[in-house]
Order: sequence, then structure tokens, then C-alpha cells
Amino acid sequence: MTDSPTRTHWIGFDLGGTKMMAAVFDAGFRPLGRKRRKTKGNEGTKAGIDRIVETIHDACQESSIVPEQLAGIGVGVPGLVDLDHGIVVSCANLGWKQVDLQGELQKRFGCPVTVINDVDAGVYGEYRFGSAKGSRSVVGIFPGTGIGGGFIYEGNIIRGKNYSCFEIGHTQVNPQGNLCGCGRIGCLETEASRLAIASSAARAAYRGDAPNLLAAAGTDLNDIRSGALAEAIRAGDKSIEQIVRRAANMLGSAAGDIVNLLSPDTIVLGGGLVEALPTLMLEGVEEGVNQRAMAGYLKTCKITISKLGDDAGVRGAAAWCEHIQELKTSK
Amino acid sequence: MTDSPTRTHWIGFDLGGTKMMAAVFDAGFRPLGRKRRKTKGNEGTKAGIDRIVETIHDACQESSIVPEQLAGIGVGVPGLVDLDHGIVVSCANLGWKQVDLQGELQKRFGCPVTVINDVDAGVYGEYRFGSAKGSRSVVGIFPGTGIGGGFIYEGNIIRGKNYSCFEIGHTQVNPQGNLCGCGRIGCLETEASRLAIASSAARAAYRGDAPNLLAAAGTDLNDIRSGALAEAIRAGDKSIEQIVRRAANMLGSAAGDIVNLLSPDTIVLGGGLVEALPTLMLEGVEEGVNQRAMAGYLKTCKITISKLGDDAGVRGAAAWCEHIQELKTSK
Repeated sequence: MTDSPTRTHWIGFDLGGTKMMAAVFDAGFRPLGRKRRKTKGNEGTKAGIDRIVETIHDACQESSIVPEQLAGIGVGVPGLVDLDHGIVVSCANLGWKQVDLQGELQKRFGCPVTVINDVDAGVYGEYRFGSAKGSRSVVGIFPGTGIGGGFIYEGNIIRGKNYSCFEIGHTQVNPQGNLCGCGRIGCLETEASRLAIASSAARAAYRGDAPNLLAAAGTDLNDIRSGALAEAIRAGDKSIEQIVRRAANMLGSAAGDIVNLLSPDTIVLGGGLVEALPTLMLEGVEEGVNQRAMAGYLKTCKITISKLGDDAGVRGAAAWCEHIQELKTSK
Repeated sequence: MTDSPTRTHWIGFDLGGTKMMAAVFDAGFRPLGRKRRKTKGNEGTKAGIDRIVETIHDACQESSIVPEQLAGIGVGVPGLVDLDHGIVVSCANLGWKQVDLQGELQKRFGCPVTVINDVDAGVYGEYRFGSAKGSRSVVGIFPGTGIGGGFIYEGNIIRGKNYSCFEIGHTQVNPQGNLCGCGRIGCLETEASRLAIASSAARAAYRGDAPNLLAAAGTDLNDIRSGALAEAIRAGDKSIEQIVRRAANMLGSAAGDIVNLLSPDTIVLGGGLVEALPTLMLEGVEEGVNQRAMAGYLKTCKITISKLGDDAGVRGAAAWCEHIQELKTSK
């Protein structure tokens, strides 16, 4: 008879629309190994869960641990999650509806599982280990195809009754603006996301105002990614720099209103666009915040860039799972 | 030698710009008695503190208790408060700057004193005893001359590093709007406060579009109070009803964005304007929220009117003082 191993390690899992990643952390949340796979949402729920399970197994093997050493699994999902039950209520990228991800993974691995929103996981990661480490109050803003947000207050992710909240992408910034995916007009997301920027950039390229972008990426929104925007700016496309700065200013204005509401110690900016253009995005957001926020709150608010990049989500999800277990134990 | 009395009673104190009120509560926060006085901010700090002390003494007498029975004093102040030290940093209505109100009152009464923002006190009162009782997450919006807000999450008032926050009055709702007292353009406060409504109403009266308001209150903003607006609407001034409804819609739009951010269980509306026109204000705010907030969050958010009126602030301030003492004891 062999002793069962001590459960000391954690999985952080990032379930993205196109790719998934499992990362193994030791008891001090140092990364041991990781495994990436394509998500293949079109293969359905059952196959999707099998892929997640396989990816976790592979990450364990990569890290020279066995799944029986896992103390818990934290998952971040880009969709609507029933937080109390760990059910993925809907996830457009994956085509999932009402999937009991927590239950399924607990059954397969016999350890606690938490499922949260992917942006919350990223902001929590920055709070625990990154550029917002130890802040009493953190607002995270992650512009990408959409614009996600999260709010950590005194160590907890602020949430709604059933679901995650902080949908900063759907605050209205321009009543005369564009139609948003949510059906309303002029939401921050439809005015200042990477997709909004790409759309303006494509027009500039089409008009001949962004020759470098036109040469490198053309006018197809599918090809105008953060990296292409950054390269075009480096190559001298002033129009693209203006477009990005204007979007960052709008992000900053919305963030400034949030400073007036919540007076956070730290605002952390993350996501692909910010990683590709850190200085321009930071400056642009700061300009916007400075214009909108009240002086007293500005003094105590630091605006910063994500330190952990892709790792923020997996480390945050894993650490949140630990936090929830600690809360349960202390009750 | 006599036994010193048990300290079981609480004072809630509302330090307004024109009047102050002390209320005595028993251990179960039932009101025993109260005393009102004019504030007379122009008499200076020393005289002001003396007036506060006298008012508390009188309220005790009125309630047949002695000050030695006080377990604590909670004060709500319409200004900037250093929350950790109970110092009134600035209070425009009173002309106070850097007044150690907590220290002074502790010296005079020998019991714990907490000083918080008056709107936070009101929202906390509604959370503990009023129309938001027991809600996990409450946003309070109190439109008056300005527009104040507060956010209670899992039993705590959400605050900034040093000061209270939730300055909902200074979120931007109209980039083409009016100049706000804060120096920026189109803040909610400058578009939808009682003062903003009075300003539009005065114009309607001047133009002859609000004959009842004109007859009762004229065109002086000083005389167009909430009661006068309510009477004019009852007497048939459709223009005034439209003006109030439009302001309530704007409040609702701003509140809708906050629903997307914080997904509160309850939004409580309070203050003089809401008390004078509860149905119109509630309907108008609901219309605005319904247009802006995301469907999933709308379902779990109840919008309601303050139940405690003037009492919300004093009961809330007193109960918050108790809450802080309990937190200290449990540490």
C-alpha cells in the first residue's frame, strides 16, 4: 500500500475562444510547467471537457507531478459564469450553454475547482503577483476584441449576485457613437476596443493615410491585429498613432469616471493591445484619466501596465481557487 | 461611590450646511429622542464644535439618558473626511478645514467617535434599517443641490485610500453639457441635480411655460425647491414634469452604467427631490436604467426609494460607529 501524495499544487486554466492553457504551480505559486492546446469549440461540450482534462494531465506530466497532488483547479472563462456553482452559463466563443464545468472537473480530479471570468482571473493575478501586488483596491481594464474589466477590493473580486460584473466595456462614452454588439450605442467597447481601432485603422489604410499598415496588413479587420498596429506606428503611420491614442484617451475618460466612483489605489491595463503598445496606451489612458478624475483621487491612484502578460490569467485563477478554499476553511 | 452607567446607547449626528441634528438610539437602534439646531458655519470651528456638543447633550436629555451611557457617536459630514482619523479635511458649507472632529468629540464624551461622509451614512442607514435592508450590494443615489452616492458591499462602505468615494455626481453624462462646479463639463450633477432642474424650470417659468411654478415660486433658483416643483406638477405644469423626468432619465442612464459595473442587488434613491416626487423620480430612473443596463444584471437589481428619509443619515452614522467598534473587537 502506498501513501496518497500530499495535495500541494495548483492548476490555473485559461479557457480561451481559440486556445486553452493549463499551468501547474507549486504551493508558493511558482510556475512549474504548462501546456497549450487549440480550443476547437465546434466539437461540442463533451469533447471540450475531454480536451481540458487532457491538457491538465499533460501539464502535470510536463511538471513532473501526478494529478493526485493537485490541491485545486482554478479556471478562467471568457463568458457568463454562475459563480456559486461553477457553471458556464454561456460562452459565445465556445458555443457552450449551461455546462457544469466545476462539477465535471471535480469528478475527474477529485479536488476543489473554481470557475470565474477570465478578466477577473487576470486582474486577480496582477493583484496577487503582478503590477498591482498588495493594492487595497484595484481596477483592471483589458482592452482586446472587447473590453473587459475587474475590480478587486480588499482581497476579493467584486461580483454580482450570480455572475461576475465590472462590464466597463458597456459604459456609454459616446451617445452619438457606433452600434455595439450589446445592441446599445456608443459603449466604450465599440469606440475604443482593439476591434474599434482596427476598424478606424482599416479606413485610414483604405484612404491611403496609413501606407505601412496597408502594405503589411491590408484593410481586412481580421489581419489588423495589435502587432500590425504597433509595427505600422513604428514605421511612421501617424494616423494609426492618432487613432490608438484617441482610443486610449476614451478608455482613460471612462477610467476617470471609475476613479471618481471607486477611488482605486491601482488601475492595471492589460491585454494584447497594451502589450503591443505599452507606452502609447499608458500615456493615452493617463491623459484621459487626468481630464476626468477629481484631483484628490488622482493623487492616490497609480496607473500601471500588466506585468504578467499571458500568465496573469492562469496564476490568478489558481490563486483565487486557493483563496476560496481558505475562506471556506476559516468559516 | 456610584457605579458608572453601562455604555449601551448611540448618537447619530447629521452635520448639515444649514442645520445639524443629533439623534439618540438605544442598543437596538430604536430612536429615543433628537435635537435640531442651526449650523451657523460662519461662527467658526470652535463655536461649531461647541454647538455640536450642546446638541448632543440636549438630545441625551430629551431621551432621558446621560452622556456617560453613550457607547459611541457616529457623525455624517457633507464634505471631505479623512476616514482613518475622523478629520474633516474640508467642508465648503461650514467653511471648515482640517478639523479633528473625532478627536474633539472623543475628548468631550469619552466614547468612540466615527466621522464619515453624510451620503455614505444615509446609504448605510437604508442598508441596515431601510429599503435596502440586508442587501449584499447596495448603490445609493441622493440627488439634491449636488448628487451624492454611496456603495455598500457585503456590509462595508466602499471607500478610497483616505477619503470616501462614489462621486457619482461627477461622472460625465453629456460631453456637450453645462459647466460643473468641479470645473469639468457635463457631469451628472450639473445636468440632473435639483439645482439643474431648478435652472431649467426657472427658464420654463420665465418663458411662460410653467404658470403654476411662476405664480408660486417665481424665477429665482433660491425659491425653486423640491416642494415647489412637486406642487407645480400637481397643479398641471407639464413642462416641469418633463424637465424632472428628463433629469431622472439621466440619473438612470448613469445608474445603468453603474449596474453594468457593479451589478448591485439594490439601488436606493433618496434626498429631498426624491421625497417630494417619489413616483416620477422612480419611474424616470427606471426608464434610464432599463435603457443602459445589461439584461442579466437588470433581473437581479431592485430600484427603490429611501424608507427612512431624514433619519437614514443619523441612524446610518450611529450604526456604522457600532460596526467599526465590532470590527475592532473581533480583530
